[in-house]
Amino acid sequence: MSRFFSEKYKDLEPYVPGEQPQDMQYVKLNTNESPFPPSPSALYYASEAARPANLYSDPDCTQLRKTLAESYGIGAENIICGNGSDEILNFAFMAFCDPRHPAVFPDITYGFYPVFAKLNGIMYREIPLEPDLSIDPARYIDSGMTIFIANPNAPTGKLLSPIQIEGILATNPENVVVIDEAYIDFGGISCVPLIKQYSNLLVVQTFSKSRSMAGARLGFGIGSEELIADLNTIRYSINPYNVNSYTAALGVGTLLDPEYTKANCATIMKNRKMFTKGLRDMGFEVLDSAANFVFAKHPLINGQEVYEKLKENGVLVRHFAKDRIKDYNRITVGTAEQIDELFGAIKRIWRIR
Amino acid sequence: MSRFFSEKYKDLEPYVPGEQPQDMQYVKLNTNESPFPPSPSALYYASEAARPANLYSDPDCTQLRKTLAESYGIGAENIICGNGSDEILNFAFMAFCDPRHPAVFPDITYGFYPVFAKLNGIMYREIPLEPDLSIDPARYIDSGMTIFIANPNAPTGKLLSPIQIEGILATNPENVVVIDEAYIDFGGISCVPLIKQYSNLLVVQTFSKSRSMAGARLGFGIGSEELIADLNTIRYSINPYNVNSYTAALGVGTLLDPEYTKANCATIMKNRKMFTKGLRDMGFEVLDSAANFVFAKHPLINGQEVYEKLKENGVLVRHFAKDRIKDYNRITVGTAEQIDELFGAIKRIWRIR
Repeated sequence: MSRFFSEKYKDLEPYVPGEQPQDMQYVKLNTNESPFPPSPSALYYASEAARPANLYSDPDCTQLRKTLAESYGIGAENIICGNGSDEILNFAFMAFCDPRHPAVFPDITYGFYPVFAKLNGIMYREIPLEPDLSIDPARYIDSGMTIFIANPNAPTGKLLSPIQIEGILATNPENVVVIDEAYIDFGGISCVPLIKQYSNLLVVQTFSKSRSMAGARLGFGIGSEELIADLNTIRYSINPYNVNSYTAALGVGTLLDPEYTKANCATIMKNRKMFTKGLRDMGFEVLDSAANFVFAKHPLINGQEVYEKLKENGVLVRHFAKDRIKDYNRITVGTAEQIDELFGAIKRIWRIR
Repeated sequence: MSRFFSEKYKDLEPYVPGEQPQDMQYVKLNTNESPFPPSPSALYYASEAARPANLYSDPDCTQLRKTLAESYGIGAENIICGNGSDEILNFAFMAFCDPRHPAVFPDITYGFYPVFAKLNGIMYREIPLEPDLSIDPARYIDSGMTIFIANPNAPTGKLLSPIQIEGILATNPENVVVIDEAYIDFGGISCVPLIKQYSNLLVVQTFSKSRSMAGARLGFGIGSEELIADLNTIRYSINPYNVNSYTAALGVGTLLDPEYTKANCATIMKNRKMFTKGLRDMGFEVLDSAANFVFAKHPLINGQEVYEKLKENGVLVRHFAKDRIKDYNRITVGTAEQIDELFGAIKRIWRIR
C-alpha cells in the first residue's frame, strides 16, 4: 500500500478470482467457463459487423439491446449492458443500497457480493444457508433490505423456482431484489418475465457461461425502465463506453444463433448427469446442481487436499477455504474428455476404483 | 429516477459523451477518434493470438503489460490496464483522494474529472485557466491536494513541458499528481520517464487516440509499484477481468508495430498545421494545439451556431455550453478529405471565401 492510498479503502479485501494460468496446460475446471467456442455466428458478426475499432463504441449498445429485447420479448429500455455482469452487479449495489436500504444475501454465495458492499461502504447482512446448503426463501420475506440472490446459487448449484422468488418480490415492494442468473441456462427457469409485474426486480445475466464468451466480458441487467435509468446514471458517471464494439458484435451474433447455445447447454446438462453419477460412484457427496458446475466433497478426503493434489496432476478445480464449505470443491462441468481426465486423475491419486 | 435510487447519487450529473450517431452519415470530427484503422499488426494479433473467448481473459494482462513495459523501458509492475483510460482515472480518484487529499484540476479540462469527484463524494477545487486558456503550473505548487492535469489539456490542446510538470511533482511530495496523457502522442513529451524519480506521479494514457482503438476500450496507468498496487486493490474489488481478451491482443499487436502509430501521428500533425492555417485564413481564432483536435472560435459567429449549422450540413464537431469557452468548438483533426469537407461546409454556410 502506498502512503497515498485513501483512508476509505485501506481495509478493502479484493475479490480473488479463480486462477487463470496463462500456460494453458491444465484441465481447467475451476472458473465455470464453457468448454465450447463462441458460436460461428458470433465470430462472423465480430469480424464482419463490428463498428470500426478506431471509432468509439456505441455507448447505448443500440443493436445489442435491440437484439436482446427481441430474444426476451421485452423492451430495449428494460436493458443495460455491462463489461461483464460483475459491472452491472456493482452498479446495482451503488444504485440501490444506502443507509435506508442495506444489502442482504446468503452467507454462502458469489464471493463478490460482500466485496461490492464493502467497496461502496454499504451495510450488509448475510443470511445462513439451510443445513442442506439451500436458500430458504422464507428468510427473505419482508426483509426491508436490498436483496441479492444468485439463482442457481454459487458455489452450490442449488435452484429456486420463479414462484419462490415471486414470494420474495411481492413481500419486498420497497426494496430492490436482484436475481443473479449467471447460471440459469443450465436447466433453471428465468425470472425475466416477472419484470413486467414487479418494478422492484432486477435480473442480471451474463454471456460468460452458457454463451461461451467469458473472455469477451459481456453481462446485462433487465428490469423496469426506471431501474435501468438509475443504473445508466451510474454507468454514465463512470464509463459510458463500457462495452467495446467487438464484444457488442459477438453478443449480437450469439443471440442470433440461439440453437447453438441451446445445444451446448443440453450437452453440459447431459455431461452434468454423467459427472454427478461418476463422482457419486467414487464416493463423493455431490449436491444436485442446476448450473454448469457441481459442488462435491468426499467423506474421506480433505477439500484442500482434493484441490491441491488435482492441481499437481494438471486439473484445476475451485476450493473455498471458508467455514461450512471447506470440505467441498466446485468443479466445472467440462466436455466428456475433460471429465474422463478428471476421473482418471482422482482414481490414480486416491487409488479409487 | 426510481424510488429505489440511492440517496447518495440523487444529485449525480452524469458525463455527457460526444454524440455517437449510429447511422454513420456524418463527417465525424467530434470525439477525437483516429481517422485511421487499427494497425494490421493489431488486427493480426486479435484474430490469431487472442485467448479463446470462451475462457476468461487474463486478469493480470500479463502479455500486454510486458509489451507495454518493453515499449516504455519500465517494469510490468509499473503498469495497470483498464477498460479505457476513463476506468483508470476513476480508480485514481477512488484510490488517491479522501478528506485529507481533496482533488484539484483546471476549471476547463476533461469534463469527466468533476463527475468522478462527485461520484466518489470527493471534495474538489477548480483552478481557473489563465486568460489565454493555458494552465499556469505555478498555481499547482504546494497544493496539498491530489492533482489531475490533462496534458495536452482538453479541449484547448495546450501543452505543458515535462520541466513544468516536474515543478508540480517536486513541490507536492505528499500528494499524487495524475498526468492524463490521452493526447501526448501528437507532438508532446511524455512524463513517463519521471516515474522513476517521483513516487507521487501517475501517468494515464490511452489506445483510443493515436493508436486507433477507441472502440476497443484500452487505457493504462504508469507509476510506482506502490501506486499501481493501490489501483489494483480497487480494480480487484470492482472487476478483475476488466480488459477483454480481444482488446488485450489488439493492444499487443499495436505496440509491436510502433511505426504505424508514428506515421499516423505524423500525418495528423501535418494535417493539424494545414487545418489550423485554413481555419485562420477563414477568420477563425485557433489555439495552438498539441493534440489531434483544434479549439477554434470565429469573432462573428456564435459557437452554438457553428455546431448546429455544421451538424445540419453533415459535419459533427463538439461544442461545450460552458462559460469562457462557449464561443469555441473543438474539432478533431481528420484526414485531408475530411478537412476539405469541413472547409467546404463552412464556406457554403457562412459564405466565407
